[in-house]
Amino acid sequence: MTVNKISLSFVGSGNVATQLARNFFSKGIEIKSVFSPNYENCRALAESVDAEVLTSIEKVGDADVIVISVPDDKIENVVDNLHSTGSLVVHTSGITPLDVVSGKFKKSGVLYPLQTFSKSKNINLENVPFCIEATDENCLSTLKKLSSAVSKKIYEIDSNQRAYLHLAAVFVSNFVNFMYSAGYDIVTGNGLDFEMLKPLIKEVAGKVMLMEPLKAQTGPAVRKDMRTLEKHRDLLQKNGEKKLLELYNLITESIIRKYDEL
Amino acid sequence: MTVNKISLSFVGSGNVATQLARNFFSKGIEIKSVFSPNYENCRALAESVDAEVLTSIEKVGDADVIVISVPDDKIENVVDNLHSTGSLVVHTSGITPLDVVSGKFKKSGVLYPLQTFSKSKNINLENVPFCIEATDENCLSTLKKLSSAVSKKIYEIDSNQRAYLHLAAVFVSNFVNFMYSAGYDIVTGNGLDFEMLKPLIKEVAGKVMLMEPLKAQTGPAVRKDMRTLEKHRDLLQKNGEKKLLELYNLITESIIRKYDEL
Repeated sequence: MTVNKISLSFVGSGNVATQLARNFFSKGIEIKSVFSPNYENCRALAESVDAEVLTSIEKVGDADVIVISVPDDKIENVVDNLHSTGSLVVHTSGITPLDVVSGKFKKSGVLYPLQTFSKSKNINLENVPFCIEATDENCLSTLKKLSSAVSKKIYEIDSNQRAYLHLAAVFVSNFVNFMYSAGYDIVTGNGLDFEMLKPLIKEVAGKVMLMEPLKAQTGPAVRKDMRTLEKHRDLLQKNGEKKLLELYNLITESIIRKYDEL
Repeated sequence: MTVNKISLSFVGSGNVATQLARNFFSKGIEIKSVFSPNYENCRALAESVDAEVLTSIEKVGDADVIVISVPDDKIENVVDNLHSTGSLVVHTSGITPLDVVSGKFKKSGVLYPLQTFSKSKNINLENVPFCIEATDENCLSTLKKLSSAVSKKIYEIDSNQRAYLHLAAVFVSNFVNFMYSAGYDIVTGNGLDFEMLKPLIKEVAGKVMLMEPLKAQTGPAVRKDMRTLEKHRDLLQKNGEKKLLELYNLITESIIRKYDEL
C-alpha cells in the first residue's frame, strides 16, 4: 500500500491533532473524518482537511488508521467507546504506554511526534522526530510509511523509552520556558526590556546544537563563584522572591554537585 | 574624538576579553596592550589584535580606555594595583557595581556585554546588548561611541538594574542549560539520542522570540495533569534520581502556583 492510499480518521481536534491532520492532508493523505467533543474545534479542523465532521464517537467508522489525539487522561475513555473492526488504532501520547490501545485492539500502535504544538502556529513536521511503536511488523510498517510522508526522522522506540523521552522533553521545554518566564519577571520588574535577554536565549539554545550541554555550562554555579551567588540571593531576598530564591538555590546546588561528581 | 581614534588596553585574556578585543580590533580600534596573569592566553590574545604583551599590571600605561575584563572576584584586586593618570577605566561585569572602579578612578564606567562567550566560538557582537554606565556624561559618550562600533544595541542602565539583569541572565542561560543537561542525561541513560530533543529545544527558544514566556507555557504542570506528573515522578524514583526528582517537584509546584495566581 503506498502512503497516498492510507486513509485516516482523527479522534481529537486539539493542537497535536490539528498539526498532524493538516500535515498529512498536505501530503495527499485522505482524512476521512474528525470526531471531537469540542464541536467548534472539530468542525474547524475537519473543514481545513476536507473531512467529515462526526458528532459522536460511535460514528467513527473504519479508516486504515484511527488516530486518537486527545489529552492523556482521556485516551482510555476514547478506547473504551471506540468501535473498530479492522483499523489500526494509534494514540499520539508520549507518556501513555502501547497497552492502553493494544489491550482492546489487536492492530494498534503509537505515533508520537516530539514537539510542542500550538494551533495558531503551523509547524512543518519535516524535522520533528516521530516515535513509533506497534503490536506487529505490519502495523509498524504502516506507521513508518505514514510518518515518513511528513518527517525525515523516524525512531522505533518502546513505551518505556518513550516515557523517559517525554520526561526529558518536560525538562528541555516546559521547564526551560519557565526559566524564561522567571527571567522575564526579573527584568520587567526592574524597568528593563525582555528584548535584552533574547540574543542570550538564542545563543544558549544554539550552543547545545553544537556541543553537549555538560560542556556548555557557564555561570557562577559551575565556577563556584560564591560571592556572585551570594549577591544573587540578596537580590531575590530584597525583592521578596521567596519561591524564586528556593528555585535559585536548588538549581545552583544541583549544578555544583553535578560538576563535583565529574 | 571619532571611534577609530579611541585606543584601548585590556586587563584580562579570558572569554569576554578575547571576544571584545577581537571585535573592537576588527573595527579598526587600536588595542595598545594586553595584561593577564595567564601568560599563554595573554600572548595569544595580544598577537591576534596586534597589541603589546605586558608581563605586569604596573606596566599598563594610559590608553583612552582601560578595559578590566577579569573574573568578578578579581576586579577589586586589579583596581587596587592599576596605575592610571588619565584613562577611562571600565569593567565588563554584570554583577559588579560601578563604585568598585569609581571609588579609585574619577573617569570610570562599566561596559557589560550581555552574552555567553567561549573563546573557541567567535561571536559577532552586532546584536549583543551592551549595557553602559559611567561617572559622567563625557565618559558615557565615549562608551557609547565605543560600543556602537561593534553593536547596534546600546542600553544605559545603572548598577542595580545591571545586577538584576545578570540574575535574569543566569535563569535564561545557565539554568536553561542545566535543564538541557538533565534532558541529555535522561535520554542517553535510556538508550536514546540527544539529537531527538534538538528540534524541541529550537522551537521552545524560537517561541519566546514571538510571544511572552508566560503565554508560551505548555506541559503537564500548567495543565495540572496530575496523572502525568505522577508518572514522571515514578520514572525518576525508579531510576534513583533523587536530586532530579526534587528539582522536578519544585519547578512543577512553581509553575502550578504561578498560573494559579494569575
